[in-house]
This record gives sequence, C-alpha cells and structure tokens, in this order.
Amino acid sequence: MQSKYVLSVLVENDSGVLIRVAGLFSRRGYNIHSLNVAETEDKKTSRMTIVVQGDLRTLDQIEKQLLKLIDVKEVLVLPEDSVCREHILIRAGNSVEERASMIEVANLFRAKIVDVSHDSLMFELTGEPQKITSFVNLLKQYGIKKLVRTGISALERS
Amino acid sequence: MQSKYVLSVLVENDSGVLIRVAGLFSRRGYNIHSLNVAETEDKKTSRMTIVVQGDLRTLDQIEKQLLKLIDVKEVLVLPEDSVCREHILIRAGNSVEERASMIEVANLFRAKIVDVSHDSLMFELTGEPQKITSFVNLLKQYGIKKLVRTGISALERS
Repeated sequence: MQSKYVLSVLVENDSGVLIRVAGLFSRRGYNIHSLNVAETEDKKTSRMTIVVQGDLRTLDQIEKQLLKLIDVKEVLVLPEDSVCREHILIRAGNSVEERASMIEVANLFRAKIVDVSHDSLMFELTGEPQKITSFVNLLKQYGIKKLVRTGISALERS
Repeated sequence: MQSKYVLSVLVENDSGVLIRVAGLFSRRGYNIHSLNVAETEDKKTSRMTIVVQGDLRTLDQIEKQLLKLIDVKEVLVLPEDSVCREHILIRAGNSVEERASMIEVANLFRAKIVDVSHDSLMFELTGEPQKITSFVNLLKQYGIKKLVRTGISALERS
C-alpha cells in the first residue's frame, strides 16, 4: 500500500548531501512530495524534512541506506501525531471589486496581507497543511497569480 | 565576490527534477544554503525556493543551464525587496524554573507555543529570516533540544 511518510533527516553540511539523499529516494522509485532543508543552530549541520509516498517495506530499506551515507547523522520517520506545519505566500485577485471579499476569506484563515498592488493581494499563512490547501482552494475563484509553499516542516512531540 | 541569491524555480513534477536542479549548482561549486520545494495550485508543477552563495557570473551561467533542463519552466533571481519569509519549529528548555522567562522571550517575538513537556516547550515562529535567527540565538541560553527551519520562501512584490 502506498502511504505518505514524513522524514526528519539531520545531515552534515556538504555540497553533495542533498543530491545523495534525494537520489536514494528517486532510485527506489519513491516520489518526493515536498522537501525543505536549512541550517540548524549548529552551522555545520542542516535538518531536512522530506514528505514521501511509497510502501513501508521500501521505506525501511531507504532508512537503512540513508544511515549508511557518510553525512547523514539521524533519520526519523515521524509519528502521525507530530507537529506538522506549512507556510504559504500567495498572490491572488484580478480586480479591485473583489478585494473586500478576498480580505474576508483571508480573515477567516487569519492570513496576513504582505503586499498590495492595484488589482491583487499577497497573503501569507502558516498552519497545518490541510488548512493551507483549503485556503488555496478558496482563493482560486479570485484568480491565483503565483504561490509558493514550503512543504511540511515537522518535529516530534515530547 | 560571493553573495547570497534567492532563486524561485518553477518545475514540472518529475521524480528526478530536484536532483537535476541541485546537481547543477553543486557541479559548479555553488553552495546551496537552503532549499524548499512543494506543489503549486497545479498538481503538475512545483515551485522551488533556493538560497545559494557564489559569484554573479557563475549564477548567470547556472540560470541559463537551468532553463535548458526539460522540466524547468521558469527561473527567477528574486530582487532584494522581495517578500522573504521563513518558518521555524524549535524545542528548548531544561527546567520548569526557566519556563516563565522563556515564554517572555517568545511573547516578544510573538512566537506560538505548540507543544509542552515537563521541562521543555516547542515554539513556532514565522517571519523574516534575520528575526528567526535572533529568536534562535536568544533561546540558546535555555538549551535548544531540536529545531527545524524551512529555509527562505519568497515571492516578488508586484
């Protein structure tokens, strides 16, 4: 059965580590749904959050192979109750007339207006991934000009 | 001169596209500082935000080569006044005694508490990357247990 999994991978900063990690998934036919990577509090290491889709048996194999890569220090398959967040920047709108209605939708989601032009607005929103997707779907009626999502970022609960 | 650049790259979803894009930077000795990639409103495309460090002349070459890759639809080197955001999840703290003081710091940054354990707290914060870094630096005194940053996510202003 194909399911979605969220992996948290701690790596040493090296120019090739991203390619080696992503390559492992791709060679196994595992689809990377989203990925983000940035430095931790220690400038020598970065933490990657990877959302992948595939079967559990293959995931077990990938986990073991990831740990064999020299720059990989920790691999966690996060449990379902982990704290999962996503951030979006989205520009939408085609006319001044629709602005008030768009702002109403944004207020419902507690999205923040971060840029204004004569016919469109740019919003930012942080929340659970499903909430971000609902926000995108509601803004479609106003015309989406451009959007960028970070992909899921997640940490285990204590 | 080595500077930091923020690139916004629209790609068609294909299991190998991340590796091809990241590989181009790494082969040119260009260091990827942070990267995130997730689907847009169109399930067939994803938008990547990549922060790289290097010289401008090499960046021009990389930009041209990126556009030659079959799955790359758009490459933008974002101007400095673009909307740049980052999101962090961070667990910190070693004792109950420090909790009030930690919450005070979090309130100053308008960070949100997302998980509580007997001796630590998990916060989330969205904002400009420098603000996220300041927050991390201030939490260091309480002991950082784990953190994950999305890396910069950005869109051009209108």
